[in-house]
Order: sequence, then structure tokens, then C-alpha cells
Amino acid sequence: MSLLDPLFRWEALEELFTDRARVQGMLDFEGAFARAEAKLGIIPKDAAAKITAKCRSELCDFPSLAQGAARAGNLAIPLVKQLTDQVAKDDPDAARYVHWGATSQDAIDTGFILQLRAALHKFDEELSRLAGSLANLAKTHRATPIAARTWMQQALPTTFGLIAAGWLDATLRHRARLAEAQERAIVLQFGGAVGTIAALGNRGLEVANALGEELNLRVPEISWHSHRDRVAEVASVLGLLAGTLGKIARDISLHAQTEVAEIFEAAGEGRGGSSTLPHKRNPVTAAVVLAAATQVPGLVATVLTAMIQEQERGLGGWHAEWETMPQLIGLAGGALHRLAETVPHLEIDTAKMRQNLDVTRGLIFAEAVQMALAARVGRMEAHQQVEAACRRAQNEQRHLREVIENDAEISKHFSSQDIQRLFDPAQYLGVADKLIDRVLKAHASRKPKSAVKGD
Amino acid sequence: MSLLDPLFRWEALEELFTDRARVQGMLDFEGAFARAEAKLGIIPKDAAAKITAKCRSELCDFPSLAQGAARAGNLAIPLVKQLTDQVAKDDPDAARYVHWGATSQDAIDTGFILQLRAALHKFDEELSRLAGSLANLAKTHRATPIAARTWMQQALPTTFGLIAAGWLDATLRHRARLAEAQERAIVLQFGGAVGTIAALGNRGLEVANALGEELNLRVPEISWHSHRDRVAEVASVLGLLAGTLGKIARDISLHAQTEVAEIFEAAGEGRGGSSTLPHKRNPVTAAVVLAAATQVPGLVATVLTAMIQEQERGLGGWHAEWETMPQLIGLAGGALHRLAETVPHLEIDTAKMRQNLDVTRGLIFAEAVQMALAARVGRMEAHQQVEAACRRAQNEQRHLREVIENDAEISKHFSSQDIQRLFDPAQYLGVADKLIDRVLKAHASRKPKSAVKGD
Amino acid sequence: MSLLDPLFRWEALEELFTDRARVQGMLDFEGAFARAEAKLGIIPKDAAAKITAKCRSELCDFPSLAQGAARAGNLAIPLVKQLTDQVAKDDPDAARYVHWGATSQDAIDTGFILQLRAALHKFDEELSRLAGSLANLAKTHRATPIAARTWMQQALPTTFGLIAAGWLDATLRHRARLAEAQERAIVLQFGGAVGTIAALGNRGLEVANALGEELNLRVPEISWHSHRDRVAEVASVLGLLAGTLGKIARDISLHAQTEVAEIFEAAGEGRGGSSTLPHKRNPVTAAVVLAAATQVPGLVATVLTAMIQEQERGLGGWHAEWETMPQLIGLAGGALHRLAETVPHLEIDTAKMRQNLDVTRGLIFAEAVQMALAARVGRMEAHQQVEAACRRAQNEQRHLREVIENDAEISKHFSSQDIQRLFDPAQYLGVADKLIDRVLKAHASRKPKSAVKGD
Amino acid sequence: MSLLDPLFRWEALEELFTDRARVQGMLDFEGAFARAEAKLGIIPKDAAAKITAKCRSELCDFPSLAQGAARAGNLAIPLVKQLTDQVAKDDPDAARYVHWGATSQDAIDTGFILQLRAALHKFDEELSRLAGSLANLAKTHRATPIAARTWMQQALPTTFGLIAAGWLDATLRHRARLAEAQERAIVLQFGGAVGTIAALGNRGLEVANALGEELNLRVPEISWHSHRDRVAEVASVLGLLAGTLGKIARDISLHAQTEVAEIFEAAGEGRGGSSTLPHKRNPVTAAVVLAAATQVPGLVATVLTAMIQEQERGLGGWHAEWETMPQLIGLAGGALHRLAETVPHLEIDTAKMRQNLDVTRGLIFAEAVQMALAARVGRMEAHQQVEAACRRAQNEQRHLREVIENDAEISKHFSSQDIQRLFDPAQYLGVADKLIDRVLKAHASRKPKSAVKGD
Repeated sequence: MSLLDPLFRWEALEELFTDRARVQGMLDFEGAFARAEAKLGIIPKDAAAKITAKCRSELCDFPSLAQGAARAGNLAIPLVKQLTDQVAKDDPDAARYVHWGATSQDAIDTGFILQLRAALHKFDEELSRLAGSLANLAKTHRATPIAARTWMQQALPTTFGLIAAGWLDATLRHRARLAEAQERAIVLQFGGAVGTIAALGNRGLEVANALGEELNLRVPEISWHSHRDRVAEVASVLGLLAGTLGKIARDISLHAQTEVAEIFEAAGEGRGGSSTLPHKRNPVTAAVVLAAATQVPGLVATVLTAMIQEQERGLGGWHAEWETMPQLIGLAGGALHRLAETVPHLEIDTAKMRQNLDVTRGLIFAEAVQMALAARVGRMEAHQQVEAACRRAQNEQRHLREVIENDAEISKHFSSQDIQRLFDPAQYLGVADKLIDRVLKAHASRKPKSAVKGD
Repeated sequence: MSLLDPLFRWEALEELFTDRARVQGMLDFEGAFARAEAKLGIIPKDAAAKITAKCRSELCDFPSLAQGAARAGNLAIPLVKQLTDQVAKDDPDAARYVHWGATSQDAIDTGFILQLRAALHKFDEELSRLAGSLANLAKTHRATPIAARTWMQQALPTTFGLIAAGWLDATLRHRARLAEAQERAIVLQFGGAVGTIAALGNRGLEVANALGEELNLRVPEISWHSHRDRVAEVASVLGLLAGTLGKIARDISLHAQTEVAEIFEAAGEGRGGSSTLPHKRNPVTAAVVLAAATQVPGLVATVLTAMIQEQERGLGGWHAEWETMPQLIGLAGGALHRLAETVPHLEIDTAKMRQNLDVTRGLIFAEAVQMALAARVGRMEAHQQVEAACRRAQNEQRHLREVIENDAEISKHFSSQDIQRLFDPAQYLGVADKLIDRVLKAHASRKPKSAVKGD
Repeated sequence: MSLLDPLFRWEALEELFTDRARVQGMLDFEGAFARAEAKLGIIPKDAAAKITAKCRSELCDFPSLAQGAARAGNLAIPLVKQLTDQVAKDDPDAARYVHWGATSQDAIDTGFILQLRAALHKFDEELSRLAGSLANLAKTHRATPIAARTWMQQALPTTFGLIAAGWLDATLRHRARLAEAQERAIVLQFGGAVGTIAALGNRGLEVANALGEELNLRVPEISWHSHRDRVAEVASVLGLLAGTLGKIARDISLHAQTEVAEIFEAAGEGRGGSSTLPHKRNPVTAAVVLAAATQVPGLVATVLTAMIQEQERGLGGWHAEWETMPQLIGLAGGALHRLAETVPHLEIDTAKMRQNLDVTRGLIFAEAVQMALAARVGRMEAHQQVEAACRRAQNEQRHLREVIENDAEISKHFSSQDIQRLFDPAQYLGVADKLIDRVLKAHASRKPKSAVKGD
Repeated sequence: MSLLDPLFRWEALEELFTDRARVQGMLDFEGAFARAEAKLGIIPKDAAAKITAKCRSELCDFPSLAQGAARAGNLAIPLVKQLTDQVAKDDPDAARYVHWGATSQDAIDTGFILQLRAALHKFDEELSRLAGSLANLAKTHRATPIAARTWMQQALPTTFGLIAAGWLDATLRHRARLAEAQERAIVLQFGGAVGTIAALGNRGLEVANALGEELNLRVPEISWHSHRDRVAEVASVLGLLAGTLGKIARDISLHAQTEVAEIFEAAGEGRGGSSTLPHKRNPVTAAVVLAAATQVPGLVATVLTAMIQEQERGLGGWHAEWETMPQLIGLAGGALHRLAETVPHLEIDTAKMRQNLDVTRGLIFAEAVQMALAARVGRMEAHQQVEAACRRAQNEQRHLREVIENDAEISKHFSSQDIQRLFDPAQYLGVADKLIDRVLKAHASRKPKSAVKGD
């Protein structure tokens, strides 16, 4: 564990991507491979049992693995050697059958896919949890007025529930994407040295099927040693997810600003404190999520660039995935987890939200006035009259309602009660409520079925 | 058209992304919007007809639009002004109803989605065409032996058909991804200024539905002004596609090298000629495709980074999409088209492929020997013996077969006919043939249904 | 000109990167090359004059160039053909000497370097102009108190002058970087087909020197056809610049928020207006600059990735530069120009700045209190006492000064005048003034010498 | 140490970026800060000594630091607490003066700069070593003919010495860039909470100067908490370096291909072996370097994107640097080290280089023939005649020399000895030799002065 892991990473995910887990993934492949071959009579049943017994990462000499990888260019070569030696200690005969007919990349890729399957399962659970919290916010605050900001300027009233529904809506799409990407990505890698599985004569496909069964992995049409779109799709779907998480975090940080003060991350012992500014409550989760969302796009670009892999097995591109994918998964997962932890405990200051709607001295209701006026005098005409009234309000630092009331051209079209209503945020929320319902319905309908199947 | 467009772009796609097409997309929104509102009695039917009549990009003053956009920060504001003026010339009354209740972003995003729909349709057609050519290669060359290269070194024999099947297999996945992304991305954008559609009172959803019908676009649960995952998903799926195209182009360029000389892009008047080297036949398509595959990942990263859009409508992130998406689509589409044009005419030198299998003086058959030997003496033992034989062959510059024949330890396990077969590439192709069939079957099954629905 | 150019680009820069300018750059190479060879007696003086006379882009058939490039893979091949034909019309003999001994890439790269030299000159001028405006802000507002924000939370008082000095300080470093990059990048490209200049026998270096003199370009040690660090350095220096511009734009947009309202982009007819929100004044420049700063990093990554060019002249990587570099330069230049136009006219609301310092009810002065207290009771002790006081102030919604005054533990260390001063922002600005002077001095000392030499 | 570190990283560099080193960097700041303040009489001399004594990372509780950072959002806050507690154990009075007047970011940034200084020193040493080996190659092989390849096609003869000189030339520029970047980047960070150093009253600059002296770091004009161009410049210079390393590695891998077989990475026990292909010698260094060059551009883009930091200290952008910079440095450094280790031991097969010059059956000498002919009949005429001859040679599978000898139109201009010389690579190397000398001279002149000063 690195010093920064508790800040940036999700422990439950990190344990899937330790060095030990990486090695265990490959060993799981080797064990299953031996059993599959034994089942088909290609190697002795007993040998498979002996091999399986040694497919435990605890038995590995990690420093020696690391040095071996530095020489060989990948981890599987020294790992197969260590495994063979381990088996040979007990049964030299069985040792002959270790890794019989596979290639390094079969072990490395399948091992990674096993790690990835477990990781995607966690992502789906956490996404589902985040979605649940966002749905709660959408429900709870469906009638909470707040200033909508566009171009970082107050624009019109909206409700905080609608904002949360927007966050939720994107989250639901990510669950769907992950499920689709998982269908394509979570498959066996098994092609032998060059994709023909030639070392197994004409039995390659039989072995592939048996191996797929052992590992509960779908057998793809053909091996994908140098076609990395499966892996890169997972990277890019996580890139999309990180973008949404970053957007939510950016929103939280904007609403948390001292002058806005509408939404806060929950305080806690030592959370977001500053070493010299005792009054500060830094939005630590927002920082963590934004940091991840800043880093992930570059990592996605790396994985896409690395797709240009040469011929049957590439040089450098494949290697570039080995550290990039765990980093990308770790950052996206850390951000997701941290946000999922934070959202249920957000402190929402609805009074301040209401209060901020008055900051513009009524200008935020200009569109309401304009639309009402337009129904009488046409859009362009109304736009010009209201624009002028707004300018007057700004120049004279008066409330727009007052200016409107005193503007004969405009006020002649409205009763004073009309004008009152034009400046009530609850009266200018359009179909916000119905939109929230649509998103909640989509959420409810997706809830029961688990999008990503576990192992 | 820029000077470099015929080199890098696909004309049929480019015409969808001209300035004129961009404006027309927005005008298509405005016209449909007026008709939808008229259908619901929100604006007069006659006004909608008048507005529709003016929704033609030929009527626009483009230089003035461009200057207006520089001031306003987007194209829709000056465009709505021009449209209103155009309508007003004939019918000032009708002009009042232009853009009634929509926001700039509704027009800009929906206009872009209309362009995108047409573009994805073209992508799917061209992918289907490329897949067809790759399937032909896979069929034609299912028995053509060629050296498989891993780490840019000859490894084992394979068939060129299997290589083509690998290219095809990835291509099929991209069709599926595009179809899925299209389901999510090709939707209406309509939320009014802040997503509540407040300017239309409680009729926002009715209008949205009528508008969706007019444009034949699905109405999403909620507007997605600052949730850009729909657009970014298209970007990343095209990024995945560009990766595969780049991989195929890299392969072609490697096989086309002077010393390898197995695959060539078809020659033609002035194609790939060099100004000073009369004998050269540069792989121009490979260069174009690799150039695109080099550029696209950075553009995908841009679109992912740009997802962090503030609150109800963002500042800068949205703007960053406007040029990036067309560039990305143009580069990926250009590469796809150029490769689809090139693949059917590739010149395949099967004799040279066979000849290159002899370059290693039999070393490429080392695994075949090793596996045969391993069946007798075990994997590690066989590895060591064959490795030693290979070293001897290399040091003494002799053919491995000769070394094997003279190595009593090894040759005692084989008849001379056995040894003959061990050095025949056709004897060491594993299940290549069956794998090709699996991919061809997947291709055949996907062929009939068009993955992406057109407009 | 594209519709979005006036929004995103700087006209003075764009005219350097039109298709016509690209072609003219190559023709400038060809003309100078002919003259250089003539000077050395390699080709007839008269031929050089004839060639030079035709090196005018107006004479080119652009559509045919574009089609030729699509076939040949680069623009130089069809251009040399057109030029040769043009010369041949008047003097078939002279036509024999066109491009005599050069390679396409010599013309394309040197042509681009000539465009780049003019562009860097413009960048330096505009940076100098921006620096001047920032220096004015720093001077004018050296005593204007404003809340410093860290983690997007008010932290302590600072001055707006110090903020502007920080912006200026970074700007000055970019001028220095551009000057250094220009030293390395603005050099001749001339190596013939493979870098040996073999077509000119043993006179290649003489020609290079004469050509360098003609074009006023330094002759590098060796040609750099496939070593692209010179170009990529310019890309990354502009990437650094875009980062700083983006940071300034982000700051402006934060200060311009409705609730903060401290800094505004100047209003103007149609500037930043919204189609439906008559009161809004969108920070259009901030949007444009942030859009550029979002796009440039991906383009820098592209240029860095494209550096991996094969052997003597690469395949795809070089091609990837042709559109990416002008885009990158155009975006960075557009952002620089737009910001340089905007900064002198920023509207600064110093009253609102002062007013915002009161938003925290004194909490922003907590560090001042803490430091004063710490001098009496130690840092940790003071931290805890003041933290507690702040919590009380927050919980009870009282002003921190009041809480402090009523806290016997704390107030016993201070006179009431002391406490008054502790809550005066002007009393807690540290060495802000001296720091501003340091930056202004650095600015002044750099001013006279033009960092980037023009052509 | 991770399992993949010995493969991808340089141990000497990695030890500078361990968790322990990160913490020690911050503690070095804290100790020096205390001594600087003591020297100026701001805190007691004895306290400074006590604090300094505890500024040892061995004394830290790392798990607790990590957990503290997760809550606080950075490492400095819990570290200062631990340090204060440590000091307090011995001397509660001295503990009051820990971190007196600094901010977290001062400690974190300066600590990182100290790590970076040591790292850049190592980079310069290793670059110098790589340059030395490349210079040796350039000298040794200045007359070794080899086919130059452009667009991955044989083009003309060159020398391997000239290729190595090109590699060297780029390497020298990187040393210069690193030295310039170091001048700007290796500076103190010290601004207090918001850059005013207000906690130290009017003594901030005095302390800064004393602190700079303690740490042997230049004091910049102003603090750079949210202006990250210094850090990002280092990132982009390393990005440029990685591009060049990747280019060299790509070249090596192309020359090492089975069919080309001109350059090999030295073999060694277990180096580049394959688990199933006993004859293979994979270019492991090339893979490692290309993997790094694939990853670094994305990381550079991240650092550039992260430059958009808000106001006085940013949210998320700063955090994004913490893992990205060490990764970027580690990958670039690992690639540099691995290549520097490999180059001196490259196995160069000059016989095979010569032999490959015959692969085209004389076509590679086409330009030589064309230029000689052009001197008689003009460039275009010569181009056409030689192009035709080449086509004939290709179609009839004959040697170009033979075709030329039998082509009356061409051969009438040459004696048979002339023709002999036209097909001798040594006769068509232009000024390769002089160019090598120019680069070697530049290398020699840079050698003595160390470009980057150490600590």
C-alpha cells in the first residue's frame, strides 16, 4: 500500500490489483489449464492435481519473479519456471505438464481478465449504491428551489432534485455501458504462441472450451493477443464514468464555495481541515474525484494508443497496458467509491439555496417575465423590453420586480398578483417534477437485475 | 475543403460536417421545433410554416454568423437572430414564434446529433464493407502459410487467413459497439435554458415528444446539457475503431517492408511514388491510417476531459467539443474509408510469404519440434534440448533440421519422415482453420441486420 | 475561414496557416533552394531566376494539388510537379533544375518552419502585450484587498494585485521558454532523400549553408527528418502556455460568478448575451480560453506520440503533425489573443471584493488571530483554541470577532484595538507588496529585448 | 518495489520516489524551515535543533500518515502533526515552533522539488552516458553502409554511423532542455497559506531567503502554488525525451526483425527468451522503452490539463500531479536507463547490413542513377527514364544494373565503369561523413560541463 492509497484508492478494489493478485490470476489460469487438459486426457489427471496444488501465489519467490521478468520481458516466463520447479520438487513427472501448449500471454491476459471480472463486479455494486443515494436526493429535493447556473452564472430557478436526477441519469447509463463492455471483455485468452494453438495439434478448441468452463469464462471466436479493443473498451467506459464523477465533484465544489455555501461534504475529525486555516472545510472528496477525472483521460489515450500492436503479438503496446490498466481502474474506482461514500452524507442548506435566488435582485426571473410578456407582444419585442428593464435594474441597483412594476409598457400587461407570481421560483420550474419521475422510473426499472455478472 | 482533406478525410463524411451542414442541423431543429409547437397549438400553424420555409442554410449570411458567434460565444444566438429577421421580412407576426421556449444549446446539440446520426450510418456501411473484404481475405487465404511474428520476430507458422480473421473479428465488435453507442447518443436535446423547459409552462414534455417525432429522435428521460457521456461515448467508440484500423495499417506496413515484401497496397498512377526514389511504392494508406490512429487518442482524451462541465450548462468544456468531435469523426472516418478502399486491392505475394518461412533456417519450426519431443521427454527437458539445438544451428549457420537429424539425443525419438513433417508449415497450424470458420460465422450472422439505423 | 474561427482563433495567426500559406512556405523553400544552388554554380543562375519567378502560390492549381497529395501521400510531390510544369512553360531547360537534389520532406518541413517562425514572432508580441496589461493590474491593485481562495474556499485576505502578479510571473516564463524553443526549432530542414544529401555529391553542406543564408535559417548539425523533438518542443511550450491561460480564465470565471461578482469581462453589443436570459453576461473569453486549454493537452500528447518515427523518414507519425500543429498553434494563439484583448478591459469591482471578505463573518481572519495567539501560547494550542472559536462562531452564526472578544482564554492576550486590527484585511497581507515589486521588476527587465527574433 | 519495477524502472531513480523519500523531502523542508527561522530569531535556536533532530522519516508512523492524508486531503497535515508530537515528547516548548508560518503546500511542493533535483541530476548523468555510447557507434560505423528506410521502405544507402549520429544529435538537445527546465523548476516553494506569507508579518521574504540558502534552492519572485508551469515543463521535457528514446527503440526493433537482422540486443541468460519458442531473442529493451514512450504522452497531457488550478491553491489539479509526476519520471527514467545499458552492447551485423542493400536488385541505387542521368538530360526526363527502368527491373525480376546496361537511352551516357560505381553504396553517401563530424563536435563541446547542477 502506498501512502496516498487511502486518499485516492478504494481498498476493496486495490486488493484485486496487488502484485500477489496479479500472480494469482496467472496461477489460476495455469491450474485451470492443467485441469482442462487432464479432463481431455491430454495430460495425466494426477499431474493436473499436483500442478493445481502448487498454483498458490504464497509459494512464489517474488523478488526472483521480478528479476526474471526484467530479463524475459514478462512475468509469465519466470512464473512458469517457478511453478514447474515447485511441482518438480514433489513430482518431476507432473512438472513436465505445466503450461503445456500455452503461451505467456495466455496466462497474463487471462489472469488479468479474472482480476477485471472481479473489479467490474465491484464497480457495478458501487455504481448501484451511488445511484441509490442520488435517487434519494432527487426524491427528497424534488421541490427544493435552487438557482440553476449556466456558463457559471445564475440563469433561472431549478430544483436541487432535478440536478440530482441529472447526476443519476448519467450514472444509470454507465451501468449499462459497463454491462455491455463486460460481455465483450470478460472472455478467455487462449491462442498458444501465435493464435493457432498449434502446440495442441487439432485439439486446441476442445482445450479452450474446457478451460473456459473451468474458469467460467466465455471462449471468444479467436484469440485476441494483439487485438486489444476488449481491454481498451473497459478503459474508455471507465473514462466516461470518471468524466461523470468529475462533473458531479465539480458541481459539489462550486456549490460549496464560501459565497455560495449550498452543499457541503460532511465534516468529521480531521476531514478537510487546513494546517493554518482553522475555519476551513475543504471539499476533500471533490478534490480526490477531480484529481482522478484529470488523470483518467490521459490513461485512456495511452490504452488507445497502445492498441496499435504489431502482428501476432506486439512490442511495447501490450506492455504499456500492464501498469496503465490497474492505475486507471484504481483511480476511477477510488473516485467512485469516495463519491458513493460522500453523497449520502452531503449537507444540503436549502435555506441558503433559496437565499441565493435573491442575489440577482430578481434578474433570475427575467425569462419568466419575458415569456409571459412574449405571449402578449412576441418573443423579440419581449426580449428587448425585458433586456432593457434588466439593464435598468442593474444600473440603478434596484430589484427587477420594482422596475417592472414601474415600467408602464410592461406592467400594463399584468396584474400585481401576476407579477408576484412571476418572481416566485416555485412558479417557474416547468416540468422539472415530471423529468425527475422519468429518471427515477428508469432507475427503479434497472435496479433489480445486476448489470455485471460476478464470478 | 482543405488541401489535405482528400488525403486524410472521407468526402461522403466531410459533407456532413461542413459549416453549412452545421448550420442546417440547427435550422432543422428550429423548423421541427416550430412545427411541433404548432401541432400542439402553442404557436400558430401558419407561423410554423413560415418559419420552416426559412430554415434553409442558403439564406444565412455566414460571415455575419461567424462574427456574431465570436461575440455571443455560440452560433445559435446569431442564427436565431438571422432566422427571426428572415421570417420577419415576410411575416413579422410569425417571427415572434421563432425558437419559442428553447435554448441555444438545444439547437446546437440537436443539430449536431442529426449530423452524427447520418455519420454513424456511413460508418456502419463502411465497416460492413471493410468486414466483407476482410472476410474474403480470410476465406481466400485460409491455407496460405505465413510466418507469424511476435515481438516483431518470426515465431511460428500461421496462415494469412487467420491474420485476416483476427482483423475481421475486431471489426465486428466495433459494429456492435457503434450500434450500442448510437442507441444512447442519438437522442433529442431539449431542456430550455436550464433543463426545466420552464418557458413552456407545463407543456415541455408534450413539446419534447412532438419534436422528437418530427426529427425521428428518441426523447431522453431528461436533458443532458452538461452531461456529455453520450457524445463522449461516440468519441471513445471511434477511438477504439481507430486503434484497430491503426493495428491493421501497422501490420500492412510491416508486411510491406522491402525485406519482407509479402503484402502491398495496389500501385496506381502517382500513388505512393517518391519525388526522388523512382522505385519506391510507399504504403500511403498505411501512413494515412496510422496518422489518424496517432491523432484520435488525444482527441478522445480531450472529449473525456471536457466532460467536467459545470452545473446546468458548462463553460469551456462544451465549447471544446465543437471542433474536436468533427475532427475526431473526420479522422476516424477517413482512415476507415481509406482502409476499406485499400483492402480489396491488396497485392498478396503468397510465394514470398512461403519463402520468408525459410529465413530462420528452420528455427521457426522449433516449437513444433519441441512439442513433438516434449510428448516423449517432457516439456522442460524438450525445451532445453531444442534450445541447445537452435543455438547450435545459429552458431554454425546450419538448418535446424540438419542439426536435429544429427543430434542423436533428439533424433532417436523420430523417423526421418517425422522430421520432414515437423518442418512443414502446413503441419503446424493447429486449429487455424476452425478459428477462421468461427469468425466467418460471426460475420455472416451479423451481416443482414444493419447495426445502426439511418435517418 | 470556418464559422467558428472568429470565436476561437486569432486572425493574424490564422493567415499564416492557410492552405495558401502552407504552399507558399514550400515554394519559398524551392525558390531559395534554386538560388542557393545557382550561387554555388550547381544550377544555372538563369534557371534559378526562372524558378523563383514561379514560386508563387497564386499560380498553383489547388484542387489538383489536393488530389495529387491524396495519391502521393504528401503535398510536395504534386507541388514540385506543378512548379516544374509552370517553369517548363517558359523555359523547359530551367525546369530541369526544380527541386534538384532535395526531398519532399525538406520542402514540407522547411516550409512549416518558415510559417512557425512568423507565428512565434506573433506569440511573443502578444505575450508581451498580455504581460503589460497584467503588470498594470498588478500595479493598480497592489493594495486592493480580496479574499484569497484555496480549495475553492475563502482562506485569507490577499490583494488583487498579487493575484495579477502571479498571472504575470507565469507569463514571463513562457516568453523565455518560447525564445529557447525557437532557438532549437527554427532551423533549416535539408537532408535529401535519407539525410546524406547524396544527390548533390560532396556539396550538400555548401548548399545547406547557402540555403540557410537565403532563408535566414540556422543550419543544424544534421537533418532531423525523423527526429521531431524540435517541433514537439514548440508544441509542448504552447501546451504550457495554454495551461497558464486556462488557469487565468478559470480564475476570471470564478470571480465572475453571480454570487462572487468581483471581476467581469467587459460588456459589449451582443457579447456574452443569452438567447433567453436577458440579464446574463456570459464570460465568453473565459469559455474560449478554457476550451482551448481543454483541447491543447491532447494535441500535445499527439505530437509527442508521433515522435516515434521510423528510421530515416517515418510512416504516419510525420503525417500526424500536419494538421495537429496548426490546430494546436491556432487554439493556443486564439486563446492568447482573446485573453490579451480582454484583460485590459476587465471590470474590477473592488467594493464587492471588500464586501466578500465579510461573508465568513470573520472566519477568514482566523489565521491572523491564530498567529497572533500562537506568539503567546504556541502553535498547536493556538490552533485548537481558534478552531474551537471558529466552530462556535459557525454554530451560533456569530461573527468571529465577537466570539473572540467573549472568549476569556483568547481575549486576555489582546487589547480591543489589537482585536480590531486582527480583523482588518490590510493588516494581514504579509509581504504581498514586495512580491508584486519582484515580479514587476522581472517584467521590466525582460521588456526591452524581444525574446523571439522575427524574420 | 512492485513486481514490474525491475522491468520498467531504474532503481537509482526509484529510490528517490519511494513513500519514505516523499516524506523525507517534506521533513527536509520542515527542518530547514525551522533553522531558517531560528537564524533570523523568529523561533528559538534550540527549538530548531530539536525540530531538525526529529525530521527523519524513520520516526514516522506511515499507516497513520496515510489515513490522515485520506481525511485531510494531503500528507503534510498529518505529517506536521506527527512531527509536532515527536518534538513535544522531548520538548513541548520546541513543538510550538514546528511549521511556524508555512502551509502544507510549501512543504509538499518543496519536498517534491528536492526529490526532482536529485532525479534530474541522475537523468543528466544517464543522458551523458547514453550520448557517449551513441557517439562511439557513430564513430565506429561512420563507414558502415546500410539501407536507409523511408516510409518503411528501402530508399538509398546511408551509413549506420549517420543513423547513430541522428540518435545522438537529439539526445544532446534533451540535455540542453533539461538544464533549462531545471533552472526554472528547481526553486523554493514558500508562500504561506495564500502566497502572502502573512503569518510571518513583514518577514516573509527574509525567511524565504534564509530557507532557500538552507536548501540551496533559488527563491523565485513569488510563490507558485497554483501556477504549475515549472512542474509541467519538467513533465514535457521528459515527454520529449521519451519520444526520442521511443524512436531509437522503434528503430532497433525494426532492424532486429528476423528478415532484416542487422542489429540485436545482446543475449544473456534468460534475456528475451520465449516460453515456447526456443529460438527467439525478443528485443526486451525495445519493448520496455516503447511501452514507456506509449505511456508518457498521456501523462504529460494529464499534467498540462492539471495546470488549470483554481485561484490561490487549486482543487484536484494539484492532487493530480502527486502520482502522475513520479510515474512519468519513473517511466522516462526507466526507459533512459534501460536504453543506456543496452546501446553499448548492441550486436551489429555489418555483413547483413551490406547484404540487405542487395535485396532490391539494385533499385536502391535508382536515385544515384537518376541524379547522374539528370546531370545529362534533366531531372524530370531522368526521373521518367529511371522510373521506367525500375519498373522493367521489377516486372522482369532482373537487377537494375542489368536493365540499365541494356537500356540504350540510358547507358549511352555512361561508361561501364561509371555504371559499376553507380551501384556501389560507398559512392553514394553524400556528406554523411561530415554530418557525423558535426554531431560529434557538438557532443564533444557539451561533454565537460555538467548541464544539470546537482545538490
